[in-house]
Amino acid sequence: MPEATSRSHAERLDDIDPLGDLRDRFTIGSDLVAYFDGNSLGRLPKATIERLSQVLDREWGDRLIQAWTDGWMNLPTAVGDRLAADVLGGAPGQTVVADSTSVNLFKVLHAACGLRPDRSEIVIDDANFPTDRYLVESVAEQRGLTVRWLAIEPPEGVTAERLAPAIGPATAAVVVCHVDYRSGALADLAGLTRLIHSAGAIAVWDLSHSAGAVPIGLDAADADFAVGCTYKYLNAGPGAPAFLYVASRHLSEVRQPIAGWFGAEDIFAMGPAYEPAKGIRRMLSGTPNVLGLVAVDEGVRLIAEAGIDRIRTKSVALTDLVTDLADAWLTPHGAELASPREADRRGSHVTVRHPKAATITDRLLARGVIPDFRNPDLIRLGLSPLTTSYAEAWDGLDALRGIIAR
Amino acid sequence: MPEATSRSHAERLDDIDPLGDLRDRFTIGSDLVAYFDGNSLGRLPKATIERLSQVLDREWGDRLIQAWTDGWMNLPTAVGDRLAADVLGGAPGQTVVADSTSVNLFKVLHAACGLRPDRSEIVIDDANFPTDRYLVESVAEQRGLTVRWLAIEPPEGVTAERLAPAIGPATAAVVVCHVDYRSGALADLAGLTRLIHSAGAIAVWDLSHSAGAVPIGLDAADADFAVGCTYKYLNAGPGAPAFLYVASRHLSEVRQPIAGWFGAEDIFAMGPAYEPAKGIRRMLSGTPNVLGLVAVDEGVRLIAEAGIDRIRTKSVALTDLVTDLADAWLTPHGAELASPREADRRGSHVTVRHPKAATITDRLLARGVIPDFRNPDLIRLGLSPLTTSYAEAWDGLDALRGIIAR
Repeated sequence: MPEATSRSHAERLDDIDPLGDLRDRFTIGSDLVAYFDGNSLGRLPKATIERLSQVLDREWGDRLIQAWTDGWMNLPTAVGDRLAADVLGGAPGQTVVADSTSVNLFKVLHAACGLRPDRSEIVIDDANFPTDRYLVESVAEQRGLTVRWLAIEPPEGVTAERLAPAIGPATAAVVVCHVDYRSGALADLAGLTRLIHSAGAIAVWDLSHSAGAVPIGLDAADADFAVGCTYKYLNAGPGAPAFLYVASRHLSEVRQPIAGWFGAEDIFAMGPAYEPAKGIRRMLSGTPNVLGLVAVDEGVRLIAEAGIDRIRTKSVALTDLVTDLADAWLTPHGAELASPREADRRGSHVTVRHPKAATITDRLLARGVIPDFRNPDLIRLGLSPLTTSYAEAWDGLDALRGIIAR
Repeated sequence: MPEATSRSHAERLDDIDPLGDLRDRFTIGSDLVAYFDGNSLGRLPKATIERLSQVLDREWGDRLIQAWTDGWMNLPTAVGDRLAADVLGGAPGQTVVADSTSVNLFKVLHAACGLRPDRSEIVIDDANFPTDRYLVESVAEQRGLTVRWLAIEPPEGVTAERLAPAIGPATAAVVVCHVDYRSGALADLAGLTRLIHSAGAIAVWDLSHSAGAVPIGLDAADADFAVGCTYKYLNAGPGAPAFLYVASRHLSEVRQPIAGWFGAEDIFAMGPAYEPAKGIRRMLSGTPNVLGLVAVDEGVRLIAEAGIDRIRTKSVALTDLVTDLADAWLTPHGAELASPREADRRGSHVTVRHPKAATITDRLLARGVIPDFRNPDLIRLGLSPLTTSYAEAWDGLDALRGIIAR
């Protein structure tokens, strides 16, 4: 048995990795020693290059407007259904892929609060992603509601103990990130949803940092609403359209404020008044982005092929390896683990705190190691199970050790 | 001189067309006799295939997350500035390319009404595009305003005579389409903007059916707000991101409701409160769609190369030809011109009314002629100056004549 901190140990993990072959299905990037930002922009699937080329040549180029009725019209719901089946744990008819996560969260917040018109508060933690916090504040202002801030001490994340005292009969909706974008803390989606429901409130989940890396199980958790992005672990490319889930039991009641033609029951009736579609399509607004949608489709196919449980197993092993190496190599030199130590409490990235994080990040970049710097002192190391090899993770940590030790 | 309705006349127009060579820079589509839907989905520029391939291989694939700081971050404003210069007639710093036209119109309507907080009405014509009408109704409801409907008799469109009695001290904003999506009526952008301003109201222009086909001149017209789509005459592809213009004099005051991180002054500060960017970037919300943005960029480059004045000259000649052929061949068989007869009162499509429009459209499609059917009795013939040849227009009308005459 090679030593746990040796490169040969990492190489051995690669040798027995059942997902190891999938790495070849992606463009890896030249001059890269280690890419720790697959949780910010996932690598490019080779199948996506092929699919986009087909869509350009055979669909847009050749079929032109007819491609809309050939199949493009259905892409937001068809890709949404596949994403729901293979990534989100949702039955068909509850998910669309469209717009940005920000726009989707805006729609969902209005829709959620609209289901609890007699309640006065939206609850969100102060460690939540900026867009989520900004949107909660602006939607609260638009609806005359109050924001109740939940103080979080990273790396703990949102727990039932912290959340319980903050919710009650005034709570309309609670917004929680499944995986915290800085610490990587993994929230208990089913448990917190139950708690939120016990207060009669609506749960809004942001799955941006968990979709494609962590099993989700929205239907099983009796979830209400969820949104998330597709350019991280789903590898759909820069600014690809985001997703939005509404539990079927809410669909007949929900309204969203951006009443565009693609959300109308009969898109081409173009009648005098807006009649929202009966199903999940009512959450759409404008013309969907086809190139982005097919890229999401390809990303989801790769997740489905790997299987979300095998992905989670590799994710845990990768984050365990990085945590062990950080303990062995980095904490002796003034770094501190800023992610949960227990594998079942974290997503697929590991964050390290260091007072010189910004300088260290610059030096890593110069050596072909790409982490993410997060203000003011965090170095975030994303491990993307389909594309990050154990040896790559080892090499990146080795470079980090060299820089921190000096 | 060949006869005005002969194919050799059309061929001669092609021979002397200064934009004729540009057609070769696009994928034309196989098995197509005539494509009359460039005003719905423009043809695929060959340069876009090349550019997307570069973005995939050299940027996303190779530079990965670093491509954001290499240049992607600036795409919404950089492409917006080029679009403003070459298509909209706007100085830099007033235009972004992002989101869908629906989402942009939603933001702009809130922003416009926010500038006139003491006024109670939004004015829009009843022939306006469905999304525009639906959004005006929903934004009015959200803000406690009233919608004042302007009755229009196509093909006349919105004129000063019709609009003047409908606006006054209660009018917050007026929404007008520069070119009507059905009749093709071209509104007087500068004149109506003056009229709207004389009532102290804000003008919101939807340029979806004029951008890339008609000179616009937003700055010269002292315009306030404009939105529009890029997949029609700008040829940026299915569901490509839309544009949004805010006159610089309004920028310090405007607020929009979807407060996402890309609209924040310092995107990566990720601070506790949302501070909107000082300039036009405050109109952004989520992560911009890179593949769509570069496609818009390529589309705009082709417009710039052709020059909007030469484009307009060809557009007038094409719509004149189609109008003449319709008069000669179609009206004797029960069809009726549903577009303005005067070239200076119409955009770049010509619409024909026939009681059997739906059946006729199906037969045209079967013969490789692609028009757009619009409920209940309209056949819309889009002429896209960069890609529609005169002979193509002639062949399409000839097919239509054959079907209608039977």
